[in-house]
Amino acid sequence: MRETDFVSGFARGLKVIEAFGETTRRLSISDVAKSTGLDRATARRCLLTLSELGYADYDGKFFALTPKILRLGHAYLSATPLPHIVQPFLDRLSEEVHQSASASVLDGTEVVYIARASQKRVMSINLMPGSRLPAYCASMGRVLLAAMPEDEALSLLRQTNLKSFTPRTLTDPGQLMEELARVRAQGYAVIDQELELGLCSIAVPLENDRGRVIAALNIGAPAASVPGSEMAARYLDPLKGIARMLKPLLRP
Amino acid sequence: MRETDFVSGFARGLKVIEAFGETTRRLSISDVAKSTGLDRATARRCLLTLSELGYADYDGKFFALTPKILRLGHAYLSATPLPHIVQPFLDRLSEEVHQSASASVLDGTEVVYIARASQKRVMSINLMPGSRLPAYCASMGRVLLAAMPEDEALSLLRQTNLKSFTPRTLTDPGQLMEELARVRAQGYAVIDQELELGLCSIAVPLENDRGRVIAALNIGAPAASVPGSEMAARYLDPLKGIARMLKPLLRP
Repeated sequence: MRETDFVSGFARGLKVIEAFGETTRRLSISDVAKSTGLDRATARRCLLTLSELGYADYDGKFFALTPKILRLGHAYLSATPLPHIVQPFLDRLSEEVHQSASASVLDGTEVVYIARASQKRVMSINLMPGSRLPAYCASMGRVLLAAMPEDEALSLLRQTNLKSFTPRTLTDPGQLMEELARVRAQGYAVIDQELELGLCSIAVPLENDRGRVIAALNIGAPAASVPGSEMAARYLDPLKGIARMLKPLLRP
Repeated sequence: MRETDFVSGFARGLKVIEAFGETTRRLSISDVAKSTGLDRATARRCLLTLSELGYADYDGKFFALTPKILRLGHAYLSATPLPHIVQPFLDRLSEEVHQSASASVLDGTEVVYIARASQKRVMSINLMPGSRLPAYCASMGRVLLAAMPEDEALSLLRQTNLKSFTPRTLTDPGQLMEELARVRAQGYAVIDQELELGLCSIAVPLENDRGRVIAALNIGAPAASVPGSEMAARYLDPLKGIARMLKPLLRP
């Protein structure tokens, strides 16, 4: 790519949007400059542009994103057939097993939810399309990492901040690679309270009609009602059934 | 705003992202130039920038957004407390009435879903946070338009392409303004198959603790099981109950 083919103002602006997050709803020009590494004048111009275009509100001191910004992310969800095709299958699965069912894809070191059918919430996090979880300790993440060449998976793990969410979280890259090998061999991943105490989940890969893994499907359940050791016995068949039904529908 | 405070490259880039949509998942440089009104060279540079930053894939001819783009819209949902506060109330409401319950805000002439608890799907559209519907024929849209000064509501209606989704859709601005007056007086809006045949919905305004309408809540139901004329008798009290519980929690 030639340098003249790159719109730096656009790249900087996208960085500014990403500076807004869960704990950073209202940001000043200095806040944005600090968290993006852009100089103050650039941060200011990007923020004023967002506000001028209606993507942000400005009260004279703080900027906050407006719902117009949802147009950007939603373009992916509405334009990608996968969430649309998968959703009714997740609805049916979730109803059948009385637990939440989700689909996600990998984006870097994280899984991104693209569809979800939820029953009573057991997680403290409110998961929805667009939500992200670290791949290494999520069942869908394990399945998606296991589908990659080993060196790529290891390289992603090395880029990840491997922290313990619970005392059970695997954080050693060597142990994680062993677990990925097991997931690859058995064709599914079970997470037993590694992400949140009280929560188990099981995931299987979702292949397209050419046999390439393009997403993962999972079911989450409260550990109090379904112990980790029983997840596969209960949910593996329904999950695999849905993956089998979806396979011929998913063209590259 | 001074012209030098505006980053045109950023503004053009955002336009390019918005060019991707439900029916336009894969776009060539010419497609984007055409739909955005940008010249080919500019469209090309914006697309290559998106691809360079990982927000788009490029196969040499077509560009498609990647899940990384969800980071942009998701920044709003995760950074705004409203969806988080509202979600558990919607879950409870949806479970209680065995119908889908949603919350949305206004963005221009459209309502944008910010939270949703769904039961069996009755709509052909897969609604999720970030989904949009035209305000004039959606129950939450009617409630939000009714909360505005009349001249602003009328001006929004005049900017809207008022089309008939079903034979029952109100499309006359005069009739719509009368309906908004009724909605304002009675404190809720019922849509009886104006958006989709077979679907009814009822919405109430959601006020913050200072009495300002900041969002709308609704319940949708299949017309076959709950006729439009019975929506208020069945669902108005549960909806108003939730709005009352939420009010003191919503600070400006």
